[in-house]
Amino acid sequence: MIQELPTITFFHTLADIAGKEALRRFRSNQALEVSSKSKRGMPFDPVTEADQETERVMREHILSRYPYHAISGEELGLTGGGPIQWQLDPINGTRAFLCGLPVWGTLIGLLHNGRAKMGMMTQPFTRERFWADGKMAWRRGLNSNGMLMTRKNIPLNQAILHTNSPELIDHDAYLRFKELSKLSLMTRYGGECYAMAMLAAGHIDICVEYALKPYDIAAFIPIIEQAGGVVTTLKGERPEAGGQILAAGCARIHEQALKILNG
Amino acid sequence: MIQELPTITFFHTLADIAGKEALRRFRSNQALEVSSKSKRGMPFDPVTEADQETERVMREHILSRYPYHAISGEELGLTGGGPIQWQLDPINGTRAFLCGLPVWGTLIGLLHNGRAKMGMMTQPFTRERFWADGKMAWRRGLNSNGMLMTRKNIPLNQAILHTNSPELIDHDAYLRFKELSKLSLMTRYGGECYAMAMLAAGHIDICVEYALKPYDIAAFIPIIEQAGGVVTTLKGERPEAGGQILAAGCARIHEQALKILNG
Repeated sequence: MIQELPTITFFHTLADIAGKEALRRFRSNQALEVSSKSKRGMPFDPVTEADQETERVMREHILSRYPYHAISGEELGLTGGGPIQWQLDPINGTRAFLCGLPVWGTLIGLLHNGRAKMGMMTQPFTRERFWADGKMAWRRGLNSNGMLMTRKNIPLNQAILHTNSPELIDHDAYLRFKELSKLSLMTRYGGECYAMAMLAAGHIDICVEYALKPYDIAAFIPIIEQAGGVVTTLKGERPEAGGQILAAGCARIHEQALKILNG
Repeated sequence: MIQELPTITFFHTLADIAGKEALRRFRSNQALEVSSKSKRGMPFDPVTEADQETERVMREHILSRYPYHAISGEELGLTGGGPIQWQLDPINGTRAFLCGLPVWGTLIGLLHNGRAKMGMMTQPFTRERFWADGKMAWRRGLNSNGMLMTRKNIPLNQAILHTNSPELIDHDAYLRFKELSKLSLMTRYGGECYAMAMLAAGHIDICVEYALKPYDIAAFIPIIEQAGGVVTTLKGERPEAGGQILAAGCARIHEQALKILNG
């Protein structure tokens, strides 16, 4: 049983296939056929046919090339085992997808022995792609090919803070988030996975998320780390299991934000 | 002094010029040279060189063709007078612009005797454009040319609700917003002007905004109305002056939302 690491070329092919599948359902009537997972007592958690079909073609393509890899995905759970595990979120930002807003993305993460090593986000409508090849992080877009690098060493009062939705934050945690917000330059809501990509690209300094699943963050761990940033749980631990996640452009601002968010 | 209404072709040319000016500063270092207007005791209100330069070229182009039109813009105030008034927001969603997120837009509104009659939003990064020509509303994009039509007559518990930021909502109003949120299918934050365009396109059912200036909404009044939707203040009055604004896909859902938001 050979357990070889995939090439980044394979990630790109997988992203092409997934992006095509998701994009043809974007802003179509099919996107409206939603059901709710209603997990964890959370607000409405939509699933679309686009989520399910995109994950299906991604799994098929991975298994045709790497039949012995484990795959964990948002829609279809975990299959297989072993040291190499894919983490798939076919449409991260289903709410944005349903609203017709181009800030959703397809996320592909790869873990080796439990550590996220390679990752990719693709956004087929804006035609942007962000990835980490195991050593460095990269972007490709209409006018912006090249390396991804976080912004570093700016004072907290000049930092741009981002979170997706206040709905996902409990009362006490929200008070601490608002404290961090007050000390930062500005705060923006929404953005879904695109905000994490923009942190890696140096446009956002701090991303805080309160209810991530492993497949929501796996792709971004290597993208952010290999772009020069820091990403952990709010306890300062490795982020592969998801949960409450803090990403920052550098260690200094990560440490400052961590302190404030832990009251 | 001739006061002729502009053609929609002129709007497109103006949008081309403005979009080019804004786009070349998007995700550039120049975007970081921000200052704050700090008006109305609101949170940080960024102004970028992109806002200022884009409005400057827009004004120049309008006046070269229509020297007797009044122009009101976010950055440079009101110039001129008379029955025809342009309302310009060179970069609506400056926060999204600063975050590198492609949901900002350039807004062009046209009022005749105080009523918004024609309007356009252009997003040069996603290459989408939404407009109202005085009779109908239209879209142009990568795969989606054609008429804009709102979604109509869906039950409130299937409706998609959108607002930009919880920061702009005072405590009591936020409680009523959360009541509306609870009765809707789902709520999304962020999105800026793109959310209004997606309401006109039938992907979002209700947009509530709490602190709009006239130039934030002028372009969307005709776009939403000519796409079949309804847009008023939270008091149910004409929305041209901005303030607290409710837009909905049809009169029925507008009425239901208005009632809940007014407690």
